[in-house]
Amino acid sequence: MTTAPWRDRALPAAARVDDLLSRMTLQEKTAQLYGVWVGASADGEGVAPLQREMTADYDWSELITHGLGQLTRPFGTAPVDPALGAQALARAQRRIAAAGRFGIPALAHEECLAGFTAWQATAYPVPLAWGASFDPPLVEEMARGIGRDLRAVGVHQGLAPVLDVVRDPRWGRVEETVGEDPYLVGTIGAAYVRGLESAGIVATLKHFAGYASSAGARNQAPVRAGARELADVTLPPFQMALREGGARSVMAAYNETDGVPASADPGLLTGLLREEWGFTGTIVSDYFGIGFLQSQHRVAGSEAEAAHAALAAGLDVELPTLKCYGKPLLDAVQAGEVPEELIDRAVRRVLLQKCELGLLDEDWTPEPTGRINLDSTANRALARRLAEESVVLLDNPDGVLPLSPDTRIAVVGPRAADALAMLGCYSFPSHVLTQHPDIPMGIEIPTVLEALRAELPDAKVTFAEGCDTSDPDRSGFTEAVARTSEADVCVAVLGDRAGLFGRGTSGEGCDVTDLRLPGVQSELLDTLVATGVPVVLVLLTGRPYALGRWNGRLAAAVQAFFPGEEGGPAVAGVLSGRVNPSGRLPVSVPQVPGGQPWTYLQPPLGLAGEVSNLDPTPLYAFGHGRSYTSFAWESDAADTEIGTDGTYDMTVTVRNTGDREGAEVVQLYLHDPVASVTRPDVRLIGYQRVQLAPGAAARVSFRFHTDLSSFTDRSLRRVVEPGILELRLAASSTDVRHTTRLNLTGPVRVLGPDRVLRCETEVSGPA
Amino acid sequence: MTTAPWRDRALPAAARVDDLLSRMTLQEKTAQLYGVWVGASADGEGVAPLQREMTADYDWSELITHGLGQLTRPFGTAPVDPALGAQALARAQRRIAAAGRFGIPALAHEECLAGFTAWQATAYPVPLAWGASFDPPLVEEMARGIGRDLRAVGVHQGLAPVLDVVRDPRWGRVEETVGEDPYLVGTIGAAYVRGLESAGIVATLKHFAGYASSAGARNQAPVRAGARELADVTLPPFQMALREGGARSVMAAYNETDGVPASADPGLLTGLLREEWGFTGTIVSDYFGIGFLQSQHRVAGSEAEAAHAALAAGLDVELPTLKCYGKPLLDAVQAGEVPEELIDRAVRRVLLQKCELGLLDEDWTPEPTGRINLDSTANRALARRLAEESVVLLDNPDGVLPLSPDTRIAVVGPRAADALAMLGCYSFPSHVLTQHPDIPMGIEIPTVLEALRAELPDAKVTFAEGCDTSDPDRSGFTEAVARTSEADVCVAVLGDRAGLFGRGTSGEGCDVTDLRLPGVQSELLDTLVATGVPVVLVLLTGRPYALGRWNGRLAAAVQAFFPGEEGGPAVAGVLSGRVNPSGRLPVSVPQVPGGQPWTYLQPPLGLAGEVSNLDPTPLYAFGHGRSYTSFAWESDAADTEIGTDGTYDMTVTVRNTGDREGAEVVQLYLHDPVASVTRPDVRLIGYQRVQLAPGAAARVSFRFHTDLSSFTDRSLRRVVEPGILELRLAASSTDVRHTTRLNLTGPVRVLGPDRVLRCETEVSGPA
Repeated sequence: MTTAPWRDRALPAAARVDDLLSRMTLQEKTAQLYGVWVGASADGEGVAPLQREMTADYDWSELITHGLGQLTRPFGTAPVDPALGAQALARAQRRIAAAGRFGIPALAHEECLAGFTAWQATAYPVPLAWGASFDPPLVEEMARGIGRDLRAVGVHQGLAPVLDVVRDPRWGRVEETVGEDPYLVGTIGAAYVRGLESAGIVATLKHFAGYASSAGARNQAPVRAGARELADVTLPPFQMALREGGARSVMAAYNETDGVPASADPGLLTGLLREEWGFTGTIVSDYFGIGFLQSQHRVAGSEAEAAHAALAAGLDVELPTLKCYGKPLLDAVQAGEVPEELIDRAVRRVLLQKCELGLLDEDWTPEPTGRINLDSTANRALARRLAEESVVLLDNPDGVLPLSPDTRIAVVGPRAADALAMLGCYSFPSHVLTQHPDIPMGIEIPTVLEALRAELPDAKVTFAEGCDTSDPDRSGFTEAVARTSEADVCVAVLGDRAGLFGRGTSGEGCDVTDLRLPGVQSELLDTLVATGVPVVLVLLTGRPYALGRWNGRLAAAVQAFFPGEEGGPAVAGVLSGRVNPSGRLPVSVPQVPGGQPWTYLQPPLGLAGEVSNLDPTPLYAFGHGRSYTSFAWESDAADTEIGTDGTYDMTVTVRNTGDREGAEVVQLYLHDPVASVTRPDVRLIGYQRVQLAPGAAARVSFRFHTDLSSFTDRSLRRVVEPGILELRLAASSTDVRHTTRLNLTGPVRVLGPDRVLRCETEVSGPA
Repeated sequence: MTTAPWRDRALPAAARVDDLLSRMTLQEKTAQLYGVWVGASADGEGVAPLQREMTADYDWSELITHGLGQLTRPFGTAPVDPALGAQALARAQRRIAAAGRFGIPALAHEECLAGFTAWQATAYPVPLAWGASFDPPLVEEMARGIGRDLRAVGVHQGLAPVLDVVRDPRWGRVEETVGEDPYLVGTIGAAYVRGLESAGIVATLKHFAGYASSAGARNQAPVRAGARELADVTLPPFQMALREGGARSVMAAYNETDGVPASADPGLLTGLLREEWGFTGTIVSDYFGIGFLQSQHRVAGSEAEAAHAALAAGLDVELPTLKCYGKPLLDAVQAGEVPEELIDRAVRRVLLQKCELGLLDEDWTPEPTGRINLDSTANRALARRLAEESVVLLDNPDGVLPLSPDTRIAVVGPRAADALAMLGCYSFPSHVLTQHPDIPMGIEIPTVLEALRAELPDAKVTFAEGCDTSDPDRSGFTEAVARTSEADVCVAVLGDRAGLFGRGTSGEGCDVTDLRLPGVQSELLDTLVATGVPVVLVLLTGRPYALGRWNGRLAAAVQAFFPGEEGGPAVAGVLSGRVNPSGRLPVSVPQVPGGQPWTYLQPPLGLAGEVSNLDPTPLYAFGHGRSYTSFAWESDAADTEIGTDGTYDMTVTVRNTGDREGAEVVQLYLHDPVASVTRPDVRLIGYQRVQLAPGAAARVSFRFHTDLSSFTDRSLRRVVEPGILELRLAASSTDVRHTTRLNLTGPVRVLGPDRVLRCETEVSGPA
C-alpha cells in the first residue's frame, strides 16, 4: 500500500487535509473536534467547578478508535514528574495514533500563562507584573522559554496569553491580565505570543471577548457593554496579538455581552475574527463553554443545540473534554439537524494545524528528546529579571527606602514567609498542588523574609505573621506590634493568596465586592502604623487595593503583583537598594474600596467633577512608579499641522540625573479634545523603557501615526477625524512632561483592519 | 387690523402655527427655543452645579422683545408665597406677551416629581414609594392633584415623572425612580402621566434615556450598555408612558451611552421616539444639557456646534436658560452653518404645544383664578394613603409588631425626630429651603417620634438621637443605649438625609460607593442590638441599604422610602398596627454593601452559582413585603399550548385567612427557559393589589398576551419565540405560589411598536 497523499510532505497542507477529509467517516471527523481530559475524570475534587456534570462518560479504548482532537492538560492536572510525564504522553500519543485508521495523534494542550502549569516548572511573574515591567522584549524572551519547555515534553498548544483588558479590578482574574490599558495589553500580549510561537507552540488568545467586563466583577456574569466599547477597548489587543504575534488559536470566552454568549456569536468568531481580520487558525472553547450555552446561558435547549450554535458561530474544538461535540453533535448531523459542512469546516482547520505542526508527517514521533529541566538556571534568571523590573515603588516620601544595611527590621504580615505569596492562581502550586498537600512544591521559592535576611545580613530581622491572609483571627496582632516596637522600621508584607473558585483571595472564581485588603490585614496595618514606627508596606497581590486610608501615613509603599519564584529576592532587592525599582502601574490604585467599575480610560464625566459628590481619582495613577534615581526630560516635539493620514516624528531625550543606574518608562498619551463620540481624556498610545547609567542620556523617538488616534464612530466605522490632538509625553498618565498639539487637517478617514496599531519607537543614545 | 389667522381658534392648530411661523423673524423663532431662569441668575449659591458657567448673560427687557419659549421654575427657585407667586408669574407673562410682536406668552415649567416643588405645597412620597405601593390608580390620583395645583398658579409643564429603571442602587437619584423593574416603572409612570395630563399639565418623561445606568453609579458618568439592554430594560417605560399616559414632552438625558450623548443622538430622539413611536410633542433638554455637549462630553467644539448637534438630533428646547440656543445658534443659522429648517421644525413643535394649551388664543389670560391652597386636606389625605400603602414590612419573625399600646419604647436614631427625614431631594424643603435656613418649612410634617407618641398615647416613649445621619460623632451612643436599656423595645429610625450635589446622603449628585448605612448609623444599630433589647429597625431612605449584617438579629424591620409629609403617621400606624403594611419592595435589599451593579433582572450567570465565590442573592427580594394578616392563593391556571400570537387567561383567588383587613399584591412573573439570547431568570409582567377584609376573597384575572414574552433578538428585532414559558403567580419575585407552563407554538413573530405592553388585569369578588 502506497503512502496516502496526506502523508506527502511535498504537497501543500490544504491538499493533504482535503485528501484526508475525503476518507474520513463522520465520526472520525467529529472525533477531531474535542479533547479528553484523562487525569481529571479520575480525580476526586476536580480542578474546575461543574467538572463532573459537564463531562460525558466514555470508554477510552473505544473512543480513540475514531481518532482524537486534543489531549487536555497531561501535566497540569496532577503532580507528574516532567520526564515521566513526557514518556506517558508519548505512550498515549502512540496509542491514539495506532488506534485510529489514519494514525493521527492528538494535539496536546496545556496552561502556561505565567509559566508552564506543571510540577517543577518555573513560576514566572503573573501577567499583571508583565504589564508593570512595560518591557515587551523581556516578556517575549520569557514566553520563548516557556514554549521550549512545553515543546520539550510533547505539548503543542498553550492556553495563553490572557488579553482581557481590566474593566473592574474586583474581578478575580485581574492577576492574569496585563492591565487596564488596551495598548499595554496588546503590545505585551503580542510579545508573549511571538515568544511562544517562536518556540513552535500554538499560542491561544483568550478570552475572546469581553470576559473581563462582567457586571459586578463576578466571574462569568453578564457583560453590559456597547459595540464601541468592545471595538475600542476590548478587541484591539487581540488584533495586535494576531497581526504582530501570529497566534494560531483563539479561545472563545465564557461570557455573554448584551445577551449574546461569545461562544455562540458568529459575528464575533467568524465575521470579525476570520472575515475581517483574516484569522485562519482554530477557535477552541473555554473549558465546558459549549455545554454552558445550555446549562448556564440557556440559549440552547439541548447539548445538540449547544453544539450546533457553537459550531455555526465558528467554534472548532470543544475543551476540555467531549460533551456536546461528542455523541450529541454526531447524532444531530446524522439526523440532518446540523449540516455536515459545518463539521468539515472545523475539521479542516484542526487538521491543517496538525499538518503544520508535523503531526501528519510519516516520520512523526512523539518521543521526547534531550534532558528535561523545566526550571533551568536560564529560566530562573529570566524570572528574576522580569520580577525585578515589575516591582513598583508607589511612594517613598522620606527616603526610608532603600533600608540601611544594619537596621533593625520587623518583618510582619501573612505574606512575608509564605512561598505561595509569590504565585498566581494559574501557577502549578496554587492551581493544583493545593489539592495535593503531601507533594513538595517542586521549585525553590524564597520568601520575602528569607530573601531580605539574605540581602541584608547585617540587619536584625525579626518576624511576626500578625494574621492570616483571610482568617479573621486578630490574636497575632500583639506579637506583631511587639516586634515592630523593637524595630527601627516595619516591613509589612500583605496581600493575596491565589486560588481557584473561592479557595483564595485572588484568582479565577475569587472575586471581591470591594477593594479592601483581604481579611483583617487592613486592621493589622492600622495597628502597625499606630506604633509610630515607620512602616514600609509591601503588597504581594493579584489586583490593586484601595490605599487611600493610609495615604501620608506610610514610610514607603511597594506594590508587587505575584512576582513569581524569584519574586522574593526581587522585592528584597528593591528594599535593600540592590535593585532600583522601575515598575510602573498597569492598573490604577484607588483611594477608596468602593465605587467600581472604574479604570483610567474615562471621558470627562467619568472623572471627578461638579455633578457627583464622588471623586474617583485614584491614589496612584495608571503608569505611576518611582525610582531611586531621577530623570530629566527634554523633547523636540512642537505644535504642527499634519494630514489625517500623516505621521509625526518626535523625540524625547531622557537623562539620568541621579547617582545610580535606573530605568525610566517614557509614556506617550493621546488627548483628543473634541470628537464625534466621547473619548477618554487620555489613553496610552506608546511607551519605551530606557535603562540609564548615572548621568547617561538616551534619545527615544516616537513615530506617531494618525491611525493611533482612530476610534469607532457612531456608524461603527473606525475613523480618524480632523481637528486638534494633544500628544503628551509623560512619566505616568497624570505626570505629563511635554505636550504637543497637532492639528489634523483633511477629510475624515475611514480605516480598515490593516490600520497602524503600534507607535514605532526607537532608542538611540547616549545623546 | 384684523386678528391674525393664528388667533383663530376655529382653524386647526397646525394651520395657525404655520401662519405664525411665516411671519416670524429668525430671532423670534429661536427665542421660542429656550427658557430663562429669572430667579436663579440673581441667586448666591445657585441650585445646580455649574449654573453660573452655563448661563449666558442677557438683558431681560431686550430679550423678551423677541418672545420667549419658557419660563423656568417660577416657584421652585426660592421661597415664594404661592398666591403672590402666581400673581408675579401672571405679571411676567403679561410683560412677555406685550413685549413681543405676536403676544405669545412663555410656557412656564416646574419640577413636580413627588409633589409641586414649591413652598407650602404638599410633599408626597417619593417615586420609590409609589413603586412600593404597586398601586397605579392611587399614583394617578396623586398626579392629578399635583397637576391641578400647578395649573392653579399658572404653570403649564411639569418636569416629571422620572422613568429611569434602577440599574445600580448606589446612584443618588434612585429615590426619584419607581424601582428596578421596567414593567413596574412603566405602569406606575404611565399612571402618573395620565394624572398630570388629565389636569391639563404637560408631563415630561425623563431622563431619555439610560441615565440610571451610569458606570460606578456616579451621576452623569458614562453608561456602558448595549442595544438590547436599552431596548428591553431602559426604553419600555417610556413607550408605556407615551402610549398609555399621553405625555406631551420628553427630556433628553444628560448621559452618554457607549460614547453617544443622548442629547445629540438623532437615532434616539428622532428615529426611535418620533419615527418609530410616533411622538409629536416637544423634547426639552435637561438643565444645561446642551452646553454639556461641549463642556462635559466634548462632542462639540463650540456652543454653536453643541446647539447644532442637539437641534439636529431633535432636541427642541434648551433649559433652564439660554446658552447655546441663544446667540450662538442664531449666529450659526445666519452664517449658514445650521439649516433654518431645523429651527422651523423645533419652533413648530413648541408653538403647536402653546396653541394646544390655549396660549395663542385671543382670550388667553394669565390671571390665576380661585383660592390657592397647595396643601389642601384632600392633598394630605392622598399623601397619607400613598404613604401608608408604601411602607414595607421586611421582617417580623416574632410578631413584635404591632407594638403593644402600653409598652416602654425607646425611639432612637437621627431620622426619628427630623421632619426632613420624610422628604426626597426634589421636595421644596430639601431642594431649596436648605439654602434659606430662616424660612419656615411651609407644610406640617409630623416626625416618626411625634406620630408614634400620638399613635400610642399609653406607651412610655423616650427618645435619643444617637448620632447624626452622616457626621461621625459617636458621643450620643451612650444615651441611646441608656434609653434602650430602660425600654421594652427599641425603635431605631435610621436612614438618609436627602439633598443636592453632596449636601445629602441621597439625592441628585449624592451617590455612594457602597450600600453601607450612611455615617455611623451601622455602628449605632450594632450597639443597640448588643443591648439585648428587641430592636425594630425603621429605615427612611432613598435607596436600599445592605442589611445582611443584622439578619436574624432584629426584632422587626420596616422599610419606608421617603414617605412624604404624611409619612410619620404612616410609619407610626404600621408600628402601632393601625395600618396593616402592604408595601412591596420595588428594589432588592442586598446582603452585603458591595458588589454592584446588581438588580434582580439577571440571567442565570448573574445569579449565585459555582463559577464565582460571590453570591449576589439579596436578603429581601424584589416584590417582597409582609403583612399582619395572611393570604391563601388558589389558581385555575393550567399547563397548555397557545400560538405565538395567542393569549392565555388565568385567575387567582386570594383569600384573607387572617383576622384583620389587609392588602395582598398578586404578582405575575415570566420565566423563559430557553431563548435565542440570554434572558432574565424571572421578570415582572403583571400585578394587582387587592384589599381584603378578614375572611374575604377576590378573584384576580390576568390576560397574558404572548407579546409580553417578547424581547430583542440578535438582529435587534423584537420577537416572540415559540417554546416553553413559565408563568409564575407569586407574592414576590422569589415567593412563587403557582406555576403554569405554556407551550408557545407557531413561527417566531416579529413585533412592531404597537405590541401589547400591559397584562390586562381585573378584580372581581368576593369569590
